[in-house]
Amino acid sequence: MARAAFYAQSGGVTAVINASACGVIETARQHPETFSTVLAGRDGIVGALAENLIDTGMESAARVEALRHTPGGAFGSCRYKLGDLQGQRDEYLRLLEVFAAHDVGYFFYNGGGDSQDATHKVAQFSREFGYPIQAIGIPKTVDNDLPRTDCCPGFGSIAKYVATSIREAAFDVASMAATSTRIFILEVMGRHAGWVAAAGALAQRGPGDAPHLVVMPEVPFERARFMERVARSVEEHGYCAMVVSEGARYADGKFVADAGQVDRFGHTQLGGIAPAISAMINADLGIKNHWAVADYLQRSAAHLASATDVEQAYAVGQHAVELALQGANDVMTTIERLSDSPYRWTVGHAPLASVANTERVLPRAFISADGFGITEACRRYLAPLIMGEATPPYRDGLPDYVTLENHQVPKRLPERST
Amino acid sequence: MARAAFYAQSGGVTAVINASACGVIETARQHPETFSTVLAGRDGIVGALAENLIDTGMESAARVEALRHTPGGAFGSCRYKLGDLQGQRDEYLRLLEVFAAHDVGYFFYNGGGDSQDATHKVAQFSREFGYPIQAIGIPKTVDNDLPRTDCCPGFGSIAKYVATSIREAAFDVASMAATSTRIFILEVMGRHAGWVAAAGALAQRGPGDAPHLVVMPEVPFERARFMERVARSVEEHGYCAMVVSEGARYADGKFVADAGQVDRFGHTQLGGIAPAISAMINADLGIKNHWAVADYLQRSAAHLASATDVEQAYAVGQHAVELALQGANDVMTTIERLSDSPYRWTVGHAPLASVANTERVLPRAFISADGFGITEACRRYLAPLIMGEATPPYRDGLPDYVTLENHQVPKRLPERST
Repeated sequence: MARAAFYAQSGGVTAVINASACGVIETARQHPETFSTVLAGRDGIVGALAENLIDTGMESAARVEALRHTPGGAFGSCRYKLGDLQGQRDEYLRLLEVFAAHDVGYFFYNGGGDSQDATHKVAQFSREFGYPIQAIGIPKTVDNDLPRTDCCPGFGSIAKYVATSIREAAFDVASMAATSTRIFILEVMGRHAGWVAAAGALAQRGPGDAPHLVVMPEVPFERARFMERVARSVEEHGYCAMVVSEGARYADGKFVADAGQVDRFGHTQLGGIAPAISAMINADLGIKNHWAVADYLQRSAAHLASATDVEQAYAVGQHAVELALQGANDVMTTIERLSDSPYRWTVGHAPLASVANTERVLPRAFISADGFGITEACRRYLAPLIMGEATPPYRDGLPDYVTLENHQVPKRLPERST
Repeated sequence: MARAAFYAQSGGVTAVINASACGVIETARQHPETFSTVLAGRDGIVGALAENLIDTGMESAARVEALRHTPGGAFGSCRYKLGDLQGQRDEYLRLLEVFAAHDVGYFFYNGGGDSQDATHKVAQFSREFGYPIQAIGIPKTVDNDLPRTDCCPGFGSIAKYVATSIREAAFDVASMAATSTRIFILEVMGRHAGWVAAAGALAQRGPGDAPHLVVMPEVPFERARFMERVARSVEEHGYCAMVVSEGARYADGKFVADAGQVDRFGHTQLGGIAPAISAMINADLGIKNHWAVADYLQRSAAHLASATDVEQAYAVGQHAVELALQGANDVMTTIERLSDSPYRWTVGHAPLASVANTERVLPRAFISADGFGITEACRRYLAPLIMGEATPPYRDGLPDYVTLENHQVPKRLPERST
């Protein structure tokens, strides 16, 4: 008997999380004997808790296909962490209650570390509770910090965006340096790990190429040493273009972005790290500088998505459904690298128990000796992930993204009181 | 007798100023009977004053052609304003001295308002002085504020970047709004005019589409009215995505970006307008928000250049050379619009005397009644300028831009003492 599949997006979205959704839905549609439909959680798991379910079966094939090139989270995502099985037992009970009401037999959860942990708990709880559901995690995070998978869908595209952007901005500042701006600071994501900033170094093709510095959270920030390197770059190359992780911190663990700024009322202003570093450069070097904060632009830039990333995002969604067909449970789909050059990869899976609550930071062997760049090993790892252009269709000069109709499934349960 | 042409880039560079350089060089190469070579000023006009001239004749045809898709200023640009003819007579004398030493008969100056003014003065001075030179201005500015030309090369590409970026970021924040970020602020260029911010509104395709607000310098910023609109957008659409000009100001002329922030030593911190507005939203509405500052990324994003803009940038360079062949002097090449839809345009020219020292701000008829959006007339004007994709070639997953060899011409004059 065919049963419904549930799919939800979780945490910060990426340029390619919808490609994973596309992989899930298109693959499930090929197996109507197993999957009656794919129900999506409106705004992620909170949609399941509130019984706000979207029937993706009512979306046309063309709309579903357009998910492959559309950024954001098509069903809504959320920042909501399911509790532990002891304390928050009622949450898991509620989930199974909703799933039972809609005959959901498959749970696909698309997110980062917390989501994989939640998926593991759903698998455990349903087993314990005797409700038959197969729970399968689909990796997603621009932070690239999940273990067991060679890389995380979403990362390749942000990497391509950051490397392209610093290359372009460097062409700009290089041409202005004689009489105007000599230093450019690009702030990128990465609160705990420097993967995104490190990817900026892919813009280097030869000696002297930007970025001249990469600042990562893994390397304690030392102001004097940093300024010395910046000044040297300006002297040697005429300018200095750098990529800095938002999460860079001092040896004592304090964020560099906490620049001690206060507003006129004395309230602390937590700005970005780019303006903080800009202010330090003004104070220490007195060299004209510009800064940019890419923020959401970097993780939603589907117009510049990595074709490799889009393919992998689709594949981990597709493979999650294939694993479900094979009876798998309590696993996450993964990307496995077969070779660096030529780049070859395949999909695989890992037990969720081995994934949950582990963060993968940039290994020391990927960081250059001086701490301001990456090694050749890192370059070999990163290079294939940005390969290929997955240009979306354009209409009227702009990328043509899809907004789904998102038909709500009629509720079958009374409103949740808690 | 063939004489040399001089070409220089001026002011802030754009994604397409090199396409104009390409138009000048390729067209001049077709007329060796008139142009012995094109000499480029290293770092703009300061290169002419210092006799730092680059012989573009030594660049291969392939490299010159690659300028068409390469951002930044290939020969270096500068922020340097030539003085007035009375006070700074020695500067103009020095220019003609350098030009005479290298038998320069044509002066092509590629820049914004100040550069057109300088070109006009060179034309006047050489006439007065009896040194035969034809001075022709080539328009360039992302600010789109030059008079007499329908639009300014560089603007179409920044417009496409800003509209694409706010659309993409809006897809992101829309999916996070249920449990996390509900407001997104994108800061864009435009210290005096709101053209760039206005272009963000091209991302709107239907009611409720982002950007929900556009903040332009032409409309005095009123904090309470602004907050009311932001809150209403969050209520109606679940989120609010906006584009703000760096130059937005209060009715008294004070910049909104001057948020009265001081560092721990009490020094004023001039941050961007985006963090300033973010801090105000935190204080007034208490709604979670994110902000991005595009800075140089927006004007160097050749990977997302408007094909229309690239063609027009090339055409104004090409036409400058054609005008020189026809004996023109003291003019600027222009873009003339023949019709909105279908969009048809041609090149033309205007006397530099009519261009200098006039700034074109956004006309009132282009700003919506409430001051937070654009009118249909504005949309008709803007829409064609972002049409078409001028995708650069990619290598190893990144845009493949050219760096010229920039061979220095041996100096023929003693070092300048002044």
